[in-house]
This record gives sequence, structure tokens and C-alpha cells, in this order.
Amino acid sequence: MIKEKGILFILSGPSGVGKGTVRKALFDRDTELKYSISMTTRGKREGEVEGIDYFYKSRDEFEELINGNRLLEYAEYVGNYYGTPRDYVEETLESGKDVFLEIEVQGALQVKENFPQGVFIFLFPPSLEELANRIINRGTETEDIVKNRLTEAKKEIEMMDAYDYVVVNDQIETAVDKIQAIVKSEHCKRNRVAKQYKKVLEAELG
Amino acid sequence: MIKEKGILFILSGPSGVGKGTVRKALFDRDTELKYSISMTTRGKREGEVEGIDYFYKSRDEFEELINGNRLLEYAEYVGNYYGTPRDYVEETLESGKDVFLEIEVQGALQVKENFPQGVFIFLFPPSLEELANRIINRGTETEDIVKNRLTEAKKEIEMMDAYDYVVVNDQIETAVDKIQAIVKSEHCKRNRVAKQYKKVLEAELG
Repeated sequence: MIKEKGILFILSGPSGVGKGTVRKALFDRDTELKYSISMTTRGKREGEVEGIDYFYKSRDEFEELINGNRLLEYAEYVGNYYGTPRDYVEETLESGKDVFLEIEVQGALQVKENFPQGVFIFLFPPSLEELANRIINRGTETEDIVKNRLTEAKKEIEMMDAYDYVVVNDQIETAVDKIQAIVKSEHCKRNRVAKQYKKVLEAELG
Repeated sequence: MIKEKGILFILSGPSGVGKGTVRKALFDRDTELKYSISMTTRGKREGEVEGIDYFYKSRDEFEELINGNRLLEYAEYVGNYYGTPRDYVEETLESGKDVFLEIEVQGALQVKENFPQGVFIFLFPPSLEELANRIINRGTETEDIVKNRLTEAKKEIEMMDAYDYVVVNDQIETAVDKIQAIVKSEHCKRNRVAKQYKKVLEAELG
């Protein structure tokens, strides 16, 4: 086998859509994926392990990484920084392993800017699908309720435009099936695979 | 469920790579895919059925379809035309079913010109992979043999550039797994799915 680099997969979507549940179900099935470990300035809690739960850094260290563009994304919550270290992700990909990052939409958009070669998956709430169905089927709700819901839905849809895939989270197992199919098919993308072959062959044939 | 159109998948690759075997194994597993039925000017043989084995046409009818650009590809073999009718493909896709077309490389490149929205899968011979491995691992073959094989391989690789995916046919079942993953993941592509939602929502929201 020609050695292939890993791929960074980003699972995101609106809050409450079930990102964490789907990610857990995925990792129960797939033991090859590496979960992206976050970096934080908050103190280590009892039972937590450096490099497993988080990478723990001082505020100065973290800000140095921010200034050096060594984070794929970061945010501040309740006085502490949280972020995704670029080095950990890149080293893991270099070793041939896929990295999986589960993150809210704002973070995903930051990752997209810093790591556009990632594969971005938007987890979509099933309620919008139902809502859309209701409209198609000329439902009985008042026009106002339908309109409000659709305005909300439209905001979510606009965020979708930065993503490569959309997976509706109607059933966890179906959503996980789809994510696994995305992981497998991305490894068959011609622009990934052909480059590998070409590099080897051109080096030999000139 | 929002009604989604089907997708045309094209499986191709160099002669002898095992396209037919992989396609048969795929259709043994997947009963949802529709196989693309060819059109021909050759006479119907005993036991063959119109619309199942082929669509049978006269030479005049076939040439009229060529001139009207109603074929996604065609070729002449031993005095008879063979081709892929655009109408059958488009009607099947419109009904929401995926169409699967297995074809040699020249035909696939014609389809690519006439139907660029298809998903093009290149079935890759495992021997090249082995060959590439041999080079990486500094094998014992003479330089000339390696060079000739790689020149052949390079021609195949150049044809790959028109394709979306490359699947190495090292094991039939593994290749079928990958093709099934490609089919599933293509249905999650944001630019397919988002358009459906947006169309519905924009019609309602303005």
C-alpha cells in the first residue's frame, strides 16, 4: 500500500442537533479514527490526563500559540481559552491516521479558514426536514408559525454553505452509517489518491 | 423526505481491470441501483428482451439520436452502433433512482462531456499499486522492466484525471464496499442536498 496521509473530518451543526451523541456512536464503531484533543487554559480536574482529556497550557503559552497561528480554532469561555492545536492534528494526519473533530458552527468556520483541506460535515436537525415536508404537503399550521420556523431554518441553512456534506440526524445509526461512508469515500477521491501515485511515478519516470 | 433526484455513477477503467466482475458483485448486493441499458442497432438475439437487454433501433433511428445529441456516448463495433440513451438515464434519475453505468475509458470520457454532473469512478488495477510499492521498496527487477511498466501505468494514470474517485480493485468485496460508500456519501454532498432544502424554503420565504 502506498502510504496515505490521514484526513481531518469536522462534524458540526447547530446546538442541540446531537453532535456529541453521533460522535460517540461513531467512535463506538470505529476504533481507527483519532479524536482531536483540545487545548485549554483551565486547570486540570481530578482524574483528567494531559494529552487524553486536554492539553493543559498557561494563558501566556496559549496566547503565544494564538499569535503564532498554531491553533485551528479557539474561543474563550468563562475566562478560559479552549482551542484545537494545529501541531497535534498535523502530526496525527502525517502518521496516516484520520482525525475527527466535533465542534460548534463558529469553531468549524474558523477551522475552515485555517485548514480548508479538511472535510466538513454538517449535522442537520431532522425537524427542519419535517418542517419542509409539512410545507410541501400543505400542512395545517398557521402561516406565522411556519414562517418563524423557516426563518430559523434558513439561518442554519446559510451556515451549511461552508460544508462539504450534510447528514440529517434523523436516526443516530443512519447518521453514523453516512459519516462512515463519507470517511471511506473521501479516501477514494481521485485528487488524493492520484497525487500519491503520480508523485511516486514521476520521481521514477521523470 | 424531500424528494431527491438520482445520481448517475460511471464505473470505468482500463481493459482487464475487472469492471464487469465488480459491477456484478455490486448489483448482487444493491438492488436499488438501476443498471443503464444500452441501445444498439444489432439484431435482437433469441431470449433477449427489448428494454432489458438493450433498446433495439434501426440504423436510421440511431443516427437521428446521434445527430440530436440524445446519446451520452456511442461507438461502432463490427458494423453496429452501441450507445447510452440520454432519455432513459434522465427519466430514471428524475424518478429518484440512481443509474449505474459500466463502460470502457473512451466511452466514459464521452459521458463526462455530455453529462459532467455524473460521478466518475476509476477502477484501478492492483498491479500498478504493487508496482509502485516495488519501486518504493527498491525491488530487484531490472530498470528497463520497471520503466516499461511504469510508462504503461502512467498512461492509465493520465486517464484518471477526468474521474472523481479511484478504487483499487485489489479485492472484489473491498472494491464493492468502497463503491457503496461513494454512492452513499454522494447523496450527502452539500451542493446536492442544500439545493433541495433551499428551493423549498426560498419558495415559501421569498
